[in-house]
Amino acid sequence: MPVNRQLWIHTGKQGLHDITCRVADVVEQSGVEDGLCTLFLQHTSASLLIQENADPSARLDLENWLNRLVREDDPIYTHTLEGSDDMPAHIKTALTSVSLTIPITGGKLALGTWQGIYLWEHRRRGGRRSVIMHIS
Amino acid sequence: MPVNRQLWIHTGKQGLHDITCRVADVVEQSGVEDGLCTLFLQHTSASLLIQENADPSARLDLENWLNRLVREDDPIYTHTLEGSDDMPAHIKTALTSVSLTIPITGGKLALGTWQGIYLWEHRRRGGRRSVIMHIS
Amino acid sequence: MPVNRQLWIHTGKQGLHDITCRVADVVEQSGVEDGLCTLFLQHTSASLLIQENADPSARLDLENWLNRLVREDDPIYTHTLEGSDDMPAHIKTALTSVSLTIPITGGKLALGTWQGIYLWEHRRRGGRRSVIMHIS
Repeated sequence: MPVNRQLWIHTGKQGLHDITCRVADVVEQSGVEDGLCTLFLQHTSASLLIQENADPSARLDLENWLNRLVREDDPIYTHTLEGSDDMPAHIKTALTSVSLTIPITGGKLALGTWQGIYLWEHRRRGGRRSVIMHIS
Repeated sequence: MPVNRQLWIHTGKQGLHDITCRVADVVEQSGVEDGLCTLFLQHTSASLLIQENADPSARLDLENWLNRLVREDDPIYTHTLEGSDDMPAHIKTALTSVSLTIPITGGKLALGTWQGIYLWEHRRRGGRRSVIMHIS
Repeated sequence: MPVNRQLWIHTGKQGLHDITCRVADVVEQSGVEDGLCTLFLQHTSASLLIQENADPSARLDLENWLNRLVREDDPIYTHTLEGSDDMPAHIKTALTSVSLTIPITGGKLALGTWQGIYLWEHRRRGGRRSVIMHIS
């Protein structure tokens, strides 16, 4: 029996928000031993990302690097009505991903030792973000 | 019963081509209520992308931004026999994706309100592009 | 019956390592006629990528282009204890992907003619990399 679940994530500021435990809990409750967990973020100004979970400096550097690459108030932008952080957020989303598929083995997400699952909020103020989980 | 279907998309020029309705039609015809829709593009110079569907200026800015980042005729390129737009197309494909997985809930694609599905053609003249759909 | 399999890939140096045959062999042995093959890389300093399989110059240009975009020893980095190639490897992984989903049709991976599956090693010395395959 496939399981569909909606997770609501309150971000609140730009950056990487660890959702590994939220996702792992649903997987364990599902009772699926060997399967697939798909995550789909229903937004175009935030991303889902697998990243280094050990040292916060790696995530900080990643964020600073991408903020330098995709600048606010770039004169190339014409889509500016929704604020300086809106168009960069769409570009950052395009360069990363809104869906992730992770195998389930032995009843658990088959993440590597140093992998965490992050919701990467690209808007300065963040918001209430919806992730659809599908387990089968 | 899983459904496999091949969609042919005629692009014809560089840019984002909306394929949301084409994909949604196949999902609705499949009769699957709760499942997964996987899209796979069989090319290395075009991408599949979820992006903002409301304001065309966002898609235009995204395209202009990426064209500036991944320039034609960059002196770093040695793979130049297939035209000025070929190597940039491969790089753009690597920075985005050729596969998308979208949950199906209540018989419909679980897209967010502002999300559309786009085939992003990276070659100037485009072509006939093949997308393999798998629904289960 | 879903199949889970772990592939060990010995990289050994930076660059794109072709794993198409390794993956195709497991798919053919699985006996699945119409389904999905999901690959998940359990690391944060290497990626999985679909790319041009014909001309090695395309892959070389891709690698050189990304090495120029994501430089070693960038003064923006604070995460530097694991070597000059570590933080660039995390950024490159974020810009690409650690999971791929490819439909299976007629008992074979539904790859396009010019598509190969690559493990993109981002560390200079590479290592022993684990890919979890799920076929269903």
